[in-house]
Amino acid sequence: MNDSLQALNEAILSAFRVEELPALPVASVEDLRRRVSNGFDFDRPHALPDLIGLAAGLLRDGAVHTPHPRYFGLFNPAVTEGSVAGDALVAAFNPQLAAYSHSPAAQEIERHTIRALASRMGLPEATTGHFTSGGSEANQTAVLLALTHHFPSFGDDGAASLPGAPRMYVSELAHDSFTKIAHSAGIGRRAVRKVPVDEDLRMDMPSLREAIAEDRAGGSVPFMVVGTAGTTAGGAIDPLQGLALLAEDEGLWFHVDAAWGGGALISERRRSLMTGIDRAHSVTFDAHKWLSVPMGAGMIFTRHAATVGETFRVAAGYMPNRTEHGLDPFVSSLQWSRRFTGMKVAMSLAHLGWDGYADIVERQFSLADELRERLVSAGWIVLNRTELPLVLFSHPSIESGKATFEEVLDRVYAQNDAWISIAPLRPGRRALRACITSIHTRSEDVERLVEICEQARQESS
Amino acid sequence: MNDSLQALNEAILSAFRVEELPALPVASVEDLRRRVSNGFDFDRPHALPDLIGLAAGLLRDGAVHTPHPRYFGLFNPAVTEGSVAGDALVAAFNPQLAAYSHSPAAQEIERHTIRALASRMGLPEATTGHFTSGGSEANQTAVLLALTHHFPSFGDDGAASLPGAPRMYVSELAHDSFTKIAHSAGIGRRAVRKVPVDEDLRMDMPSLREAIAEDRAGGSVPFMVVGTAGTTAGGAIDPLQGLALLAEDEGLWFHVDAAWGGGALISERRRSLMTGIDRAHSVTFDAHKWLSVPMGAGMIFTRHAATVGETFRVAAGYMPNRTEHGLDPFVSSLQWSRRFTGMKVAMSLAHLGWDGYADIVERQFSLADELRERLVSAGWIVLNRTELPLVLFSHPSIESGKATFEEVLDRVYAQNDAWISIAPLRPGRRALRACITSIHTRSEDVERLVEICEQARQESS
Repeated sequence: MNDSLQALNEAILSAFRVEELPALPVASVEDLRRRVSNGFDFDRPHALPDLIGLAAGLLRDGAVHTPHPRYFGLFNPAVTEGSVAGDALVAAFNPQLAAYSHSPAAQEIERHTIRALASRMGLPEATTGHFTSGGSEANQTAVLLALTHHFPSFGDDGAASLPGAPRMYVSELAHDSFTKIAHSAGIGRRAVRKVPVDEDLRMDMPSLREAIAEDRAGGSVPFMVVGTAGTTAGGAIDPLQGLALLAEDEGLWFHVDAAWGGGALISERRRSLMTGIDRAHSVTFDAHKWLSVPMGAGMIFTRHAATVGETFRVAAGYMPNRTEHGLDPFVSSLQWSRRFTGMKVAMSLAHLGWDGYADIVERQFSLADELRERLVSAGWIVLNRTELPLVLFSHPSIESGKATFEEVLDRVYAQNDAWISIAPLRPGRRALRACITSIHTRSEDVERLVEICEQARQESS
Repeated sequence: MNDSLQALNEAILSAFRVEELPALPVASVEDLRRRVSNGFDFDRPHALPDLIGLAAGLLRDGAVHTPHPRYFGLFNPAVTEGSVAGDALVAAFNPQLAAYSHSPAAQEIERHTIRALASRMGLPEATTGHFTSGGSEANQTAVLLALTHHFPSFGDDGAASLPGAPRMYVSELAHDSFTKIAHSAGIGRRAVRKVPVDEDLRMDMPSLREAIAEDRAGGSVPFMVVGTAGTTAGGAIDPLQGLALLAEDEGLWFHVDAAWGGGALISERRRSLMTGIDRAHSVTFDAHKWLSVPMGAGMIFTRHAATVGETFRVAAGYMPNRTEHGLDPFVSSLQWSRRFTGMKVAMSLAHLGWDGYADIVERQFSLADELRERLVSAGWIVLNRTELPLVLFSHPSIESGKATFEEVLDRVYAQNDAWISIAPLRPGRRALRACITSIHTRSEDVERLVEICEQARQESS
């Protein structure tokens, strides 16, 4: 086992030297397939140190390196040392998190962490929460809580028993998981009403009011409104305070999807961006985004603990007894047995402290400001007005049709020194997208990104 | 970082010496809470090696040790070295598994592993599959696939659009996740018909036929039948071949929940126990049960790839383009971004090989036979007739009311040298339950368990 641990240490250290690597995969799919089928031959045993070397090599040669300092990507983070250590410990001890009595230490570490984050959000003392596989499961949990809370017959008799077609409201730039979730929750994809956005890409309140009124007039039953705090494509924050008031007036469940943007709460200077989140019935937050821990570490918070118990109730005779310490996780979440996800979050928070995280968050805000300035100085156009570190941009030569986004992107990828993407600014209108998402990103990386984009554009024009 | 890796190595090695520890938690909840709130103080930074020591100490003192050789428990495994190494690598490199183009190496490793396991199940070449957070998500995926396949309007218009109340059939000893899932899928808990079991605790086929006929006559719409291959409480295997034929006759989706029992397929001597699984429309299998990898590593297999694409379809403009290598995972699973779960499974399979796993599986079958014999020799009664390594037992002095299951169990726990549980044999009839679930369990552990139980019983009578 010592040889294996030595090999593992070397591989982990190499993962933390990712800046020495190209940002994108260098091996062809054919090459990867060959190495996988030769190396992972299950018909005979292989020495573990060899396998670790093989696996690390595949991960080095066959991935977009999300921990890379010039990965300006999809909120997939570089990971902190504390979170990797926590995750490795969890793998080795493998505690079972379905029943409190099986893993009291793990349960207490998760509760401590959930409470600390709920308090950071300004949610009331009685808020409960739990870890999920990611933002999709957290958002799905929110939809199920809202349906179960709003419609007493939903749990036993399903969507067919509701007094009309259920309707939920999201911005047209909300995460597309909500459409999948409506399918999965048996209310149908048509239950999701996509509300137009205003010029700042935020949900348009008059349009929302109109949609609700129209639905009610048509016999449908509105039950939920979702505010996105940091849209994936453009980093917009829906008007959370206005949505909280409207939800109260209309008797709707108010959910905030702060999967990414919620990280801004950690900075005292930036937390006001999230004002209104404290009035939500439920909140989604992903630690594997702005808290820079390995995937997956979603969380769902809610002030309606009784609804959680109602939604996930079961009676399983072979499970340990319920505990005086609250509901066992298997009767309060979609999952049953699950990984001890909270450990990596707790380890990372304790290692860096709130201030350490605030430094990261504030640096990323500043780097985005720097990126916007550098792009504009180099003749580019910034197309979104969010304060969050997500920049949508274009160039006059693209706008005039001399080059396309795809041509520029292909050349950026060909240089293989940074990763950005193309995103919809609004339906039918696209832009290049760069998000400051790695804890390793520094000013020189932002400077280099602008050089790379400018070179790619010049070659495309 | 080197000090942290040193501390991590020591902690991981200590996790692999779990047999030196008591099986159950030794710290009180109050003590754990105090250590957690003092140690995980997020208001200041802490040195990582100290935190690792603190965390490992909490995990040692505050958990039922599922890797313990005398954990005869709930299918939560001791973990293999290869799987811990794989999981730690994944944490450090943190590849993103939503889009093929982001992580081609990871995607190819997962496909290779899924195909190898599908082939082991005898499923056709065209079978697709993916990793899930666990068995609950896999079973939920199966229910959604069945609904989407059976009812063309389900996806867009939900359960309210169906031609009658949907009905699915499970044995009364099937996993209780199906009831939660019916709630979550918007078809309502009443959609789950629990079919009585025969004297071998297997789904009773005449009762199933009767239930379907009764439902059809009443205007309900049967759409799915679930065969459990290894029930949680009693280790029974439903008549899979009979269910396959019946499902074909009745035009129902046939799902096999082989979350635990599917592991028997790895042994050439035992694989015939699962005959009929090759005819399933979908199969659930959990690598974090009998394949002894850290939680969570569920899998769903299906021969209906097109239905997968239909169920989870989305259009997200900011995601990389779809690939020529198949559907991107974010459009073919409930999750979106997710952890690279397949790595720990592939590493462990490659390290031990099929034969290494077959040795484990066959040893566990033999140890269960030995446990049954030793119990009977010591005057106990074995109450279930499964071949799988799961023993339900009682004693004449319990049957006659001189002692209770609870009294015996409390004394077993007080000795703190083994973990077993109480499970329902059938509704209203309980038993003590011991499952051979740890790769570290040997003959002397089985012998010791019988001694522990006998001592506990004598003290209870």
